[in-house]
Amino acid sequence: MASHLIDFVLIGNNFGTPEMREVWSESSRLARQIEVEVALALAEGELGVIPEAAAQAIARRADAGQLNLDDIAQSGAEMKHSLMPTLAALQKQCGDAGEYIHYGATTQDIVDTATVLQLRQAFDIIERDATLLAVELRRLAKKYQHTPMTGRTHGMQALPTTFGFKVAVWLDEFVRHLTRLQEIKPRALTGNISGAICTYASFGPQGPAIERLTLDKLGLNTPNIGWQAARDRFSEFASVAVLISGTLGKIGNEFYNLMRSEINEIEEAFSAGKIGSTTMPHKRNPAALEGLASLTAPVLKSAALIYESMHVEHERDAMSWRAEWIALPEICIYLSAQLQNALGILRGITVNEAQMLANLHLQGGLLLSEKVMFELGKTLGKQTAHHLVYECSMQAYEQKRPFKEVLLAHPTLRATVTETQLDQWLDPTNYLGSAPEKVDEVILAANASGLLPAAGPEAR
Amino acid sequence: MASHLIDFVLIGNNFGTPEMREVWSESSRLARQIEVEVALALAEGELGVIPEAAAQAIARRADAGQLNLDDIAQSGAEMKHSLMPTLAALQKQCGDAGEYIHYGATTQDIVDTATVLQLRQAFDIIERDATLLAVELRRLAKKYQHTPMTGRTHGMQALPTTFGFKVAVWLDEFVRHLTRLQEIKPRALTGNISGAICTYASFGPQGPAIERLTLDKLGLNTPNIGWQAARDRFSEFASVAVLISGTLGKIGNEFYNLMRSEINEIEEAFSAGKIGSTTMPHKRNPAALEGLASLTAPVLKSAALIYESMHVEHERDAMSWRAEWIALPEICIYLSAQLQNALGILRGITVNEAQMLANLHLQGGLLLSEKVMFELGKTLGKQTAHHLVYECSMQAYEQKRPFKEVLLAHPTLRATVTETQLDQWLDPTNYLGSAPEKVDEVILAANASGLLPAAGPEAR
Amino acid sequence: MASHLIDFVLIGNNFGTPEMREVWSESSRLARQIEVEVALALAEGELGVIPEAAAQAIARRADAGQLNLDDIAQSGAEMKHSLMPTLAALQKQCGDAGEYIHYGATTQDIVDTATVLQLRQAFDIIERDATLLAVELRRLAKKYQHTPMTGRTHGMQALPTTFGFKVAVWLDEFVRHLTRLQEIKPRALTGNISGAICTYASFGPQGPAIERLTLDKLGLNTPNIGWQAARDRFSEFASVAVLISGTLGKIGNEFYNLMRSEINEIEEAFSAGKIGSTTMPHKRNPAALEGLASLTAPVLKSAALIYESMHVEHERDAMSWRAEWIALPEICIYLSAQLQNALGILRGITVNEAQMLANLHLQGGLLLSEKVMFELGKTLGKQTAHHLVYECSMQAYEQKRPFKEVLLAHPTLRATVTETQLDQWLDPTNYLGSAPEKVDEVILAANASGLLPAAGPEAR
Amino acid sequence: MASHLIDFVLIGNNFGTPEMREVWSESSRLARQIEVEVALALAEGELGVIPEAAAQAIARRADAGQLNLDDIAQSGAEMKHSLMPTLAALQKQCGDAGEYIHYGATTQDIVDTATVLQLRQAFDIIERDATLLAVELRRLAKKYQHTPMTGRTHGMQALPTTFGFKVAVWLDEFVRHLTRLQEIKPRALTGNISGAICTYASFGPQGPAIERLTLDKLGLNTPNIGWQAARDRFSEFASVAVLISGTLGKIGNEFYNLMRSEINEIEEAFSAGKIGSTTMPHKRNPAALEGLASLTAPVLKSAALIYESMHVEHERDAMSWRAEWIALPEICIYLSAQLQNALGILRGITVNEAQMLANLHLQGGLLLSEKVMFELGKTLGKQTAHHLVYECSMQAYEQKRPFKEVLLAHPTLRATVTETQLDQWLDPTNYLGSAPEKVDEVILAANASGLLPAAGPEAR
Repeated sequence: MASHLIDFVLIGNNFGTPEMREVWSESSRLARQIEVEVALALAEGELGVIPEAAAQAIARRADAGQLNLDDIAQSGAEMKHSLMPTLAALQKQCGDAGEYIHYGATTQDIVDTATVLQLRQAFDIIERDATLLAVELRRLAKKYQHTPMTGRTHGMQALPTTFGFKVAVWLDEFVRHLTRLQEIKPRALTGNISGAICTYASFGPQGPAIERLTLDKLGLNTPNIGWQAARDRFSEFASVAVLISGTLGKIGNEFYNLMRSEINEIEEAFSAGKIGSTTMPHKRNPAALEGLASLTAPVLKSAALIYESMHVEHERDAMSWRAEWIALPEICIYLSAQLQNALGILRGITVNEAQMLANLHLQGGLLLSEKVMFELGKTLGKQTAHHLVYECSMQAYEQKRPFKEVLLAHPTLRATVTETQLDQWLDPTNYLGSAPEKVDEVILAANASGLLPAAGPEAR
Repeated sequence: MASHLIDFVLIGNNFGTPEMREVWSESSRLARQIEVEVALALAEGELGVIPEAAAQAIARRADAGQLNLDDIAQSGAEMKHSLMPTLAALQKQCGDAGEYIHYGATTQDIVDTATVLQLRQAFDIIERDATLLAVELRRLAKKYQHTPMTGRTHGMQALPTTFGFKVAVWLDEFVRHLTRLQEIKPRALTGNISGAICTYASFGPQGPAIERLTLDKLGLNTPNIGWQAARDRFSEFASVAVLISGTLGKIGNEFYNLMRSEINEIEEAFSAGKIGSTTMPHKRNPAALEGLASLTAPVLKSAALIYESMHVEHERDAMSWRAEWIALPEICIYLSAQLQNALGILRGITVNEAQMLANLHLQGGLLLSEKVMFELGKTLGKQTAHHLVYECSMQAYEQKRPFKEVLLAHPTLRATVTETQLDQWLDPTNYLGSAPEKVDEVILAANASGLLPAAGPEAR
Repeated sequence: MASHLIDFVLIGNNFGTPEMREVWSESSRLARQIEVEVALALAEGELGVIPEAAAQAIARRADAGQLNLDDIAQSGAEMKHSLMPTLAALQKQCGDAGEYIHYGATTQDIVDTATVLQLRQAFDIIERDATLLAVELRRLAKKYQHTPMTGRTHGMQALPTTFGFKVAVWLDEFVRHLTRLQEIKPRALTGNISGAICTYASFGPQGPAIERLTLDKLGLNTPNIGWQAARDRFSEFASVAVLISGTLGKIGNEFYNLMRSEINEIEEAFSAGKIGSTTMPHKRNPAALEGLASLTAPVLKSAALIYESMHVEHERDAMSWRAEWIALPEICIYLSAQLQNALGILRGITVNEAQMLANLHLQGGLLLSEKVMFELGKTLGKQTAHHLVYECSMQAYEQKRPFKEVLLAHPTLRATVTETQLDQWLDPTNYLGSAPEKVDEVILAANASGLLPAAGPEAR
Repeated sequence: MASHLIDFVLIGNNFGTPEMREVWSESSRLARQIEVEVALALAEGELGVIPEAAAQAIARRADAGQLNLDDIAQSGAEMKHSLMPTLAALQKQCGDAGEYIHYGATTQDIVDTATVLQLRQAFDIIERDATLLAVELRRLAKKYQHTPMTGRTHGMQALPTTFGFKVAVWLDEFVRHLTRLQEIKPRALTGNISGAICTYASFGPQGPAIERLTLDKLGLNTPNIGWQAARDRFSEFASVAVLISGTLGKIGNEFYNLMRSEINEIEEAFSAGKIGSTTMPHKRNPAALEGLASLTAPVLKSAALIYESMHVEHERDAMSWRAEWIALPEICIYLSAQLQNALGILRGITVNEAQMLANLHLQGGLLLSEKVMFELGKTLGKQTAHHLVYECSMQAYEQKRPFKEVLLAHPTLRATVTETQLDQWLDPTNYLGSAPEKVDEVILAANASGLLPAAGPEAR
């Protein structure tokens, strides 16, 4: 039975998706390492560094699926080496050709390049889901472009906005994330095959050619110089994961707050049979939202760990990359759960438009104090207007009277403004500013980025 | 296949011990949860809150080992609840009595108290191994109490010290750690059974009595008030783990540096068949030391995560304790590997006394510049002495000449000091200060603490 | 003008108190260092290591207030040493006796011990304010012991509790914090005077005696062995600060949420002239609460930094303690602001009891679903009761009907329960469980701890 | 006197440069805020939103230098608002036109945009110094392209490399950093002027136009939608700072290790009068290197803090950006010190080529075991060769005999290889692999990037 909850049968899926776990599973890790060994052998065969026939035999016979992990683990304990026993088992599989496996390479070459192969799969998943999420955000932004709701600052009601505007801010963020993924991809998906200290000495003069051919076969980029002692690429990937996870956690937290019993403007999808509490029958909890919100902190901590792997001593050490082995899968796995979870949430969310409207009126018109002040300012001067409106606001607040009533009771104001005017000013839907227009601008920019699939009729 | 390397067959043992993994395994988690349910039923039976016979039946029939995890997982996906499906399966096991399982309790009661049961096991292991480690440090401090070696500051040779003195600093640290563990233990090992929001409402008036009796049965302390919304206890445990791990990482790093090819004063145990490198036959790597040094950073990051769980909203939320579920096992597991690894290292370490002595002479006497200065100061005055010795030091350094030769060539000094005197001053073993005495003091204090088993003849 | 906002004229007080800033100011730092030099000289004079008269002269003439920082800074830039120029200036102040300043000591001795002197002042402030806070929490817990309010889990209304109960959880936490401070104090307030690598070599055989006498004069504890290479004491202090700050941030966040426009159960003190917004006249923001909540993250990050200082190489390095120089003052300063801010908040908080009561009825009785279920269970059996109540709850929720109405409309229930009974069950004040009793228990335990001043009549 | 060591007179320059401190000083902050207010007024004047004459008056009279900070601070304490008192003082400066200051804007507009103005200055400094550093690395890589030295893995001697190769790895890293800075610049240097909740409501229909014109005047980009609730831009900047700082810390640590007394391959610039120790006259410490190495951890912690600012609630809160106010200046200031410090180190470093050569021979030829194995493999077969060389290596190591002697003493080898051949194989300068060629490739790529100034004759 697993000890890390990522691999728990009962709750593992709250912390990662099966798909992403598979990418980072021990068997995949081994399979990717053997993929690298095979590509290396084939490249060395083509370049005449090892016999062509041996290379072909290795490609044909090396089989990750047939390795006995328990046997390898036992040898590993004796050799106190993480790759050597796997190589030995692989050699046995390949018979005479086995001697040519791993020719000239160092452990780090194989482990690092295999990790990049895993990262490529993870990268594809993240890119795919981030794109789907952007599509969903685009749909929601458009759908609720004109749906008025209360904007809040410092937890307090501030001014009217629209639900679509709120979502458009997130869409714009996700377009930035997709752009970032594009920018870092060539740096992140770069392999490394250059021998014990990256000088290729053990490969002989053809070293750089062997590296390039091997990495071409694997579909990875070739570095200008070996990066065994320069681990910034993984940290950069982690940084972008942090930004994506930051947005996702924020969305989770935002919906969690909007779903509070007292606010009640949205609700996460409720399915029959869902249990909120073992003792309180009435509870409908924001379980998915809490899940979404709660995985940002772990991603941030794993990123903080991976950053420390940049501190390599000399040509290589075994202290720095342990951090990567721990943190890189964690980041990808937690993020995969957040992305899938967010997709489900956005697709199933209930938007309670009636309650949004009701909340806009909760403070008896005070929400529009700014509007009233600006309108009055036109005739009374801004300073006077601010003074008067501040006075009436505090009075309405403390005496719990409707703002309109207090305003109309004020001698100066009664003389300046009609009730009809005031009704218009105090209508929250008349004070949305450029919110709906901005939604269109953001969608336009998103579409122009070329990073999202073309919008259907729902988001044009 | 697992996706988190803690559970990897091939390298998992580098990141945790099987014993500690077992404590935090999914099956143990479930078993501890059922232990809590059983203790609760028994307590409620005794207090007449549920039928005594039902309580006995639950105690007899509830069996974690017989639960089908896959079935439970499937129900969990439907109910979107982490404990409910387990309870349902448990009820089925218990027949009619099943109705009385979990009576009045909330999920959090069970999950939290079960976690504390796991923590108690982990605590015991850590305490045991930290004690063993202190014993080992006491042995080494005594054994090498008088073994001269170079003290270094800023990476540069500074003054003579003894190897035992270096170890005594660590011993003193570990006695502090053992003290800390004693201090926090009663706070850490405290359960919680108080209902949905800790008011015991669902238990009726006997709530507090039920809690006390249940926790007594489990051997845990009873809190003054429920801590569902006050998670400082786990964070405090993590903090002490951080301090222990900090010392362990430092020891690993220290030995790693002392084992450098160019320093070569210690060597980690080398066993036949151990492979340093897949390509470099001569390599003997500090594999265990790097392992020891590299696990402090993950412990620190997991602690940073658990600290965030203190941020609970209202009476409870599901965001904060996810951090605990992730981080608490991680901290214990990484730390278990460090402790066991450190024990093995300390027991097997080779101390190269000849090389220690040779390194003391590496700088041709410069190491004793302070001694010479203080001795000369007695006759020439401190200021003059400092000036002269600084001048000669820089000259010796830049001209790469023996310090003694330069000193004797100086007109003032030649007139003040004899070669015999100088030989004595420049002998590093004459300038150990109170290092050996301090070793005895530290051992005395360790023994007086009552936290270590009595010392054998090797450390009195 | 300062560049770090801790020292900003306009907003610095939001991030620290003047009192705590003074403790860690550059001039205080210098003054404490000179205090150590003077105590050392006096001790060495008494022990006959330096001339008694010189010691007296140093004590008389050394004057931190008269040092010219700009001159010292310039010398420092040349010498590339942080203490040497200060010593030179000090020597000049002391005339002939100056030669005996710093006799046998190393820079680290002075800097570390002076830091501990600063820490003692900071410790006193934190202890004082944490105690005052506990007193305030005790007062509020008692005052609102019976004030019913809504308990919330997962952001959703869950069950009734009392405001005093909520506060009592925090009080219990603070009693734990005060206990922790007591436990760590002797370890934290320990000086260190033992020479370049803690062997006392430069002090001669009286080294340990000099250290003890110097530290006695300074009122600090003497270590078993020098801790230049063992920095766990500062990290331990930081850990306790993390726990205290965690509770404070949680309180800030809790009140922030309870002050939301839609919940409105408490309000932070509002003073005339306070401005919420430059454009929205009606805004009353939880400015103090946000300040309180927002300083936990910085404390956590500074603690994470100080933990890294445990990683010392060899007998000493200059990499680890830079982290301490940065982080230790930060932790104390941010925490001082949180403590003072929290005190002000607790003393000025407005508790809106009417709104608390209103919110208890917000969900039309659903809040009491658990109560109804347990009561019905007595006659219908727990399973049947759960089934019925769950059904009615979901119906009431989805049809937005009063829970009572739905319950009474149910054929089974109508036959089982009277409206009067139901009214009693649905009265939130009848379902507070042991909340009020627990408040008394917590206060009793707090008073018994001996860590708080005796309670006045308001909290007995 | 300042309390944060960034602003200390004596040691502040170890933690930041005066130039970068100035960027983030309180007076600069105020000046940038007023710059934004003036640009806004001018834009609003041009667009006819406020009177043109008032706009001109504001531009003419608003003067950050004339504001009295102490007065403003006192008002701030009363208003409990961070910007309002500054605005009031500003209004007074501007007479009647003062009424039109800050028209339609919210505090956050001004504070955020001013911060971006400060960030632009910081960005320029970082970009400038990172470029200069890349130039310096290019020079060193070329100069020492062929200088043989020992490559080390796991702290142990591994294989020969060249000093230029080591530096070329860093150069390649810095070219990646410069690329990253280019990529993030447009996102980072984007202002925000959109009113209380980014809907421009208070600006009227011309809101978006006002924003664009104001930001154009300030030389900043205009966002697609307001980012008051989307703080990823600052976090992204912090991430790149983390990567740069990671490389710098690694370089500092690498040189620190290479300067160890026992390795002694490089030395940081030593200037007359520099003091290593107050008691040990011979000490020459790597003070600058430790400084360089020690500032990465603080940058990482500040980045971890700023990441938390992404967690904004609703349209804005005051919890998240406090983290930015603390962390953004810290990151820039620490990084500025690292960059300038690194520049000084690279320009002044002494490379001890003789010692590098001597260290290559430290292990009596063992360093070349891989070479011998590959050469022998050509005739004996790889497996046999590995077996023989491993055997001889361990023998040489344990008996402390020269590798060559052991090899020649072996019956099989004596028959296979001549002493002349062996001498050639054991010459470290014959086993540098492609190290020198790679240096040229990296420089070529750096030059082709267009991010560095053209190389002089020293690095072509």
